[in-house]
Amino acid sequence: MEHLRRIGALRRKLTRTGLSGLLVTHLPDLRYLCGFTGSSAALAITRRTARMFTDGRYIAQAKAEVAGAQVEIVTRAPAITAVEWLAAQLASQGASQPEQFAGFDPVHTTVADLQRWKAALPAKLRRNFLTPIAAPLVEPLRLVKDEDELRIMSEAALLGCQLFDHMLGYLRPGLREIEVAAELEHQARLVGAEGMSFDTIVASGQRSALPHGHATEARLPRRGFLTLDFGIIHDGYCSDMTRTVYFGSPRPEERRAYQAVLEAQEAAVAAVTAGAICGDVDEAARSVLRNAGLAEAFTHSTGHGVGLEIHESPRVGANQTTRLQAGMVVTIEPGIYLEGRFGIRIEDMVAVTRDGGEILTPAPKTLIEL
Amino acid sequence: MEHLRRIGALRRKLTRTGLSGLLVTHLPDLRYLCGFTGSSAALAITRRTARMFTDGRYIAQAKAEVAGAQVEIVTRAPAITAVEWLAAQLASQGASQPEQFAGFDPVHTTVADLQRWKAALPAKLRRNFLTPIAAPLVEPLRLVKDEDELRIMSEAALLGCQLFDHMLGYLRPGLREIEVAAELEHQARLVGAEGMSFDTIVASGQRSALPHGHATEARLPRRGFLTLDFGIIHDGYCSDMTRTVYFGSPRPEERRAYQAVLEAQEAAVAAVTAGAICGDVDEAARSVLRNAGLAEAFTHSTGHGVGLEIHESPRVGANQTTRLQAGMVVTIEPGIYLEGRFGIRIEDMVAVTRDGGEILTPAPKTLIEL
Repeated sequence: MEHLRRIGALRRKLTRTGLSGLLVTHLPDLRYLCGFTGSSAALAITRRTARMFTDGRYIAQAKAEVAGAQVEIVTRAPAITAVEWLAAQLASQGASQPEQFAGFDPVHTTVADLQRWKAALPAKLRRNFLTPIAAPLVEPLRLVKDEDELRIMSEAALLGCQLFDHMLGYLRPGLREIEVAAELEHQARLVGAEGMSFDTIVASGQRSALPHGHATEARLPRRGFLTLDFGIIHDGYCSDMTRTVYFGSPRPEERRAYQAVLEAQEAAVAAVTAGAICGDVDEAARSVLRNAGLAEAFTHSTGHGVGLEIHESPRVGANQTTRLQAGMVVTIEPGIYLEGRFGIRIEDMVAVTRDGGEILTPAPKTLIEL
Repeated sequence: MEHLRRIGALRRKLTRTGLSGLLVTHLPDLRYLCGFTGSSAALAITRRTARMFTDGRYIAQAKAEVAGAQVEIVTRAPAITAVEWLAAQLASQGASQPEQFAGFDPVHTTVADLQRWKAALPAKLRRNFLTPIAAPLVEPLRLVKDEDELRIMSEAALLGCQLFDHMLGYLRPGLREIEVAAELEHQARLVGAEGMSFDTIVASGQRSALPHGHATEARLPRRGFLTLDFGIIHDGYCSDMTRTVYFGSPRPEERRAYQAVLEAQEAAVAAVTAGAICGDVDEAARSVLRNAGLAEAFTHSTGHGVGLEIHESPRVGANQTTRLQAGMVVTIEPGIYLEGRFGIRIEDMVAVTRDGGEILTPAPKTLIEL
């Protein structure tokens, strides 16, 4: 059982922190650990047991989905009941030692939530029992995908490629950017995507120089670039890909710039392998663009991890010292942005393997002229 | 200037709390107060001045949009710079009195953010300077919409009606629910919606008994109900409406149930007026359904406020003591859910006026048979 393995791995990390329990409320973490996909739940984990709390709307769904944790249906806020349960498990003799404390995730807990949780505790536990963890415990587990996850992410990425292929038959000068986004998202629905993993970027002509140009009323040019950056959600996992195409015949400098971005992208993909340092993968792309005189135009990082959330660790950016591990999935997406002129970005999802990287988004990357 | 008026009203509330400054980081609040629509900013307000901090991506946009506050472009996290600026304004003599403290919103601040903000302060200010406000300060201002907001929200609601009208020409038995959602969202894009204000609900046949049935592969029935609950975002503001239609010829009990929901909805709309108590508006709908023997089947509140966010105060639910004020916009959406059989919900957006309520979503509500 994957979920038991995941909870086991979390317990080993928890033990190293000295804490005896953990409250998990961030839904992607909770889904990862016990499989529940509902919108209201809290998971409490001790060294011996795990229990997930949710409300009456989810009785059947929790029974069908949850593995590795007992399920308790509650009428109050799930997190408050989870905190009380943890206190009863861990701190029955008072909370004077870390082995009687429970950790919570300060990045995904509001100050108001923490106030409410503390108010639900006996006075003697309010000061110390709930301890903000110093570093994420679940997220690092999520970075390395297991076989099931890699299969789902590969399916998600291929759905993205299928959509891009559909769009090649649809795109023509004169369409409004919002029509392009509408068509893409419509097709995504029809092929069964659960949703888009972020606001679709459709940036044409001079607007392609905006790294995050959301679709506007602007019309696709007779001559110029179009950048499409989009992702879908499939079985909970995000895809992410970018392609830049050209309407008409590219000017020599546009062709050269595209070629430079493509070479940068391929160089970074080639640098992906277990053990590679993220900063070196970034530098592989950056040095190609530097040599092409485009260093200043490459204004962002080369990529980022992706999974149950669209932006996960690691960051594939300059000077990042994290080492890639087999099973991580990262985007490789160098781009250049020349204000008032044009922009180009090419992005693949790449699964890190022991001896290289596997491109999950095998859509064509040579410059497509429409 | 609306924004100056809004910031002025906030200052008067702030003075009553005893605090001298406020840090605003929740983006809908920030947009409301100073007009900025970007995705990274913090607004610092004292009794004398207001300053908005954002990053270099937003130089031009901040200049064009922001009113009522100075703009400062920063290279670090906007909120951290804002905290430091507030400390310099308010606590130059140390922070020993509330008039040297600044409030922040605990509902929209994570524990980790607060840790970072405090770490940026001089040691002597860490304990007291940043004070969680005991109750929301900006949200109550947002509840009563001004003329500009009511105009925008009316436009948003009418766009929703236009989409529903389009869908009436599209719907037919045998379509998959996801095709219906895809068509609706596609049209929303084409008419210029900035996005959907929540996941579109398409629940057909027995699935109409799910209050939040998101679109699935299920096919629209030859005979049975279809509930469409959807909203678009227009100029930042959310619309929200629900209609339930029938394929084929309704059975007598289905017709009676629809009639009961419609009467409940109209009774609640009729109860909307400045000064009315939210619990009484809810009861107006609930009593109709109780008399029809459907009390148990009405499992949620009658409605909620709507504006820059899809769910705002007030809650129009049982025993809610909030009084409606002219300029509030609420949804009125009673529904019944009979598991394994069918469900029905009818929802309008209603603007509260001095002597009644104005329906912003004038789409037909008599039972449409397709």
